[in-house]
Amino acid sequence: MKNFNINKIIRPHLLSLKTYDAVNPPDLLSKKSGIPENDLIKLNGNENPYGASPKAIAALKNLPMHLYPDPDQIKIRNAISKYTGLPIDNIVAGAGADEIIDLIFRIFISPGDSILDCSPTFGMYSFCAKIAGADVKFAERDSKYDLDINEIEKNINKKTKLIFITSPNNPTGNLVSYEHIKYLLKKEILVVVDEAYFEFSKSSVQNLVLDHPNLIVLRTMSKWAGLAGLRIGYGLMHSSATKYLMEIKPPYNINVAAEAALLASFEDVSLLQKNVDMIIENRDWMNIELNKINNLTAYPSFGNYILCEFTKNYSKTVYGELEENGIFVRKFNTERLKNSFRISIGTEVQNKKVLQIIQKAMNHE
Amino acid sequence: MKNFNINKIIRPHLLSLKTYDAVNPPDLLSKKSGIPENDLIKLNGNENPYGASPKAIAALKNLPMHLYPDPDQIKIRNAISKYTGLPIDNIVAGAGADEIIDLIFRIFISPGDSILDCSPTFGMYSFCAKIAGADVKFAERDSKYDLDINEIEKNINKKTKLIFITSPNNPTGNLVSYEHIKYLLKKEILVVVDEAYFEFSKSSVQNLVLDHPNLIVLRTMSKWAGLAGLRIGYGLMHSSATKYLMEIKPPYNINVAAEAALLASFEDVSLLQKNVDMIIENRDWMNIELNKINNLTAYPSFGNYILCEFTKNYSKTVYGELEENGIFVRKFNTERLKNSFRISIGTEVQNKKVLQIIQKAMNHE
Repeated sequence: MKNFNINKIIRPHLLSLKTYDAVNPPDLLSKKSGIPENDLIKLNGNENPYGASPKAIAALKNLPMHLYPDPDQIKIRNAISKYTGLPIDNIVAGAGADEIIDLIFRIFISPGDSILDCSPTFGMYSFCAKIAGADVKFAERDSKYDLDINEIEKNINKKTKLIFITSPNNPTGNLVSYEHIKYLLKKEILVVVDEAYFEFSKSSVQNLVLDHPNLIVLRTMSKWAGLAGLRIGYGLMHSSATKYLMEIKPPYNINVAAEAALLASFEDVSLLQKNVDMIIENRDWMNIELNKINNLTAYPSFGNYILCEFTKNYSKTVYGELEENGIFVRKFNTERLKNSFRISIGTEVQNKKVLQIIQKAMNHE
Repeated sequence: MKNFNINKIIRPHLLSLKTYDAVNPPDLLSKKSGIPENDLIKLNGNENPYGASPKAIAALKNLPMHLYPDPDQIKIRNAISKYTGLPIDNIVAGAGADEIIDLIFRIFISPGDSILDCSPTFGMYSFCAKIAGADVKFAERDSKYDLDINEIEKNINKKTKLIFITSPNNPTGNLVSYEHIKYLLKKEILVVVDEAYFEFSKSSVQNLVLDHPNLIVLRTMSKWAGLAGLRIGYGLMHSSATKYLMEIKPPYNINVAAEAALLASFEDVSLLQKNVDMIIENRDWMNIELNKINNLTAYPSFGNYILCEFTKNYSKTVYGELEENGIFVRKFNTERLKNSFRISIGTEVQNKKVLQIIQKAMNHE
């Protein structure tokens, strides 16, 4: 039908959906900024500046890429089982933790259901919620960006199906308290704890998974193992939930390259852990140095990034200065974070350059 | 909540969903059959027996796997644009054509909507339909497995949102006629033409895409380019549809390995085309040889596979014989196809072995 108007058959709640605000790859940043790709410092995606394990890089040689991947993710789930200590019946791998988030929506959320987002937090929950036609209630975090249980209680009603808790929270860096999770787990809702930055925080609630059918813990290989580009994450959950995720997931959701890199990374944990330790050390050093600057608050962080909040209009000036120097950090367009940006922790050399530019920009003012 | 019953919050239509019947990877087939992996002949997944392009294999060296992939798929869509001749505004890439099928459901289908499946056909449409809560109407194909327009007409009503047409059809191998597509496009429904095997059939309706907002053509790199394991396909469609697919897709849906392999494959089209030509030649030879066997009908095929139909109980015997020899083909559990199986075209040596075993098994009877 030549004059068919596709808007007539779109599901109404999707007519005004906005794309998730994803980070651009280096070649596009280079094109947009006019700065050569090799001179860019990309600190906007919480990527690992030390890259992937050399074993993971080597594992992509001679892959049987013409054959379909394993729909049951047996090798992958066995490797994750060994790493986490949980049985494979409690593990599902996804194309990034993002895919597990999306599967959770598809399985549990009907249009009109309600979910709780503890803002400010990772944008993927509300993006997936909109696709699912869910109502997102925002339980704003307190002044230190900790969970505000009163706000959460106020926003829970009969239609509330699940709550997302990121720990460490992205972009604020703080951990959720174990007591808060225990408290939320007593409610008849699904509690999703996103531990994407677990390896940097060493803090987890995974020990509650076997006993709590309403808990799902999310993890990823993107950050600690430097595999963001290969899209591989996983969920730890009660076996009654695993069943549904395995049934409903796209059959070949983990491609053979991601599988090979994951397996090789788990063979190289000690090297990857050394990189994680360097990032932690650099993060803590950066935090101290940033907090020495007037009109700037660097929040304490358990992730591989730091949220910086500026007074007045300083954030725009500093962001501009960084960009002019080929340094890309993550800014936000919400009211609460409009004077803040998030800096991913880079290499020592990169961090020093970032710090120097911020110091200079702030003293100029 | 320790005694939380997750079935209470599952979306009701998903309680009885069955997993998509995916093909197992060689290591699992080997484990199950007790036949060493190197002795297996895997002809159950329409994979490319000549493998991927050497350029694609080389392209996975030194990938920046620690960085997120490009959410806008610019390089990928440009390469597909060059290959298909369509502008990038008419192209969306997916983690396999499967992901595009799934996105179509998510954008257009609300629970209770109806879709048309021209059975027997590819199982992914009805699998995704069930996840979406859609009602699947089956417009059974005629005795030659061609579309039955009367059956289609009978099953279209006000709730019908879309129809899937696979061409060549999987598993039957036949093409849809151009007139049938033109006829269906006059209706106020979305027509999805799955051309996963286009490179083997050389037949396409992509020239109708720019003028028909209700047409989406699907393609994949899995078969002709031997990239099944990397999950990369694409949809060709009117720009009014592209907009929604790009907005709603997972931001980083094509991983960096898939991107690199796709770009390299498009740099090696002439070699891949030679492999395609060998498969076509072998397919046509196999078809002739199989049809010489009594009690066996090998359907004419425009794909890289052949549907074999047996009289009486021969299919079970032959399937068993093949399996004992480490040869895996695709069987079906529907009433109509219970006496049939689909053989993917392998290398010349593999095909000869398959033929020999079938001949022997049928003469024994």
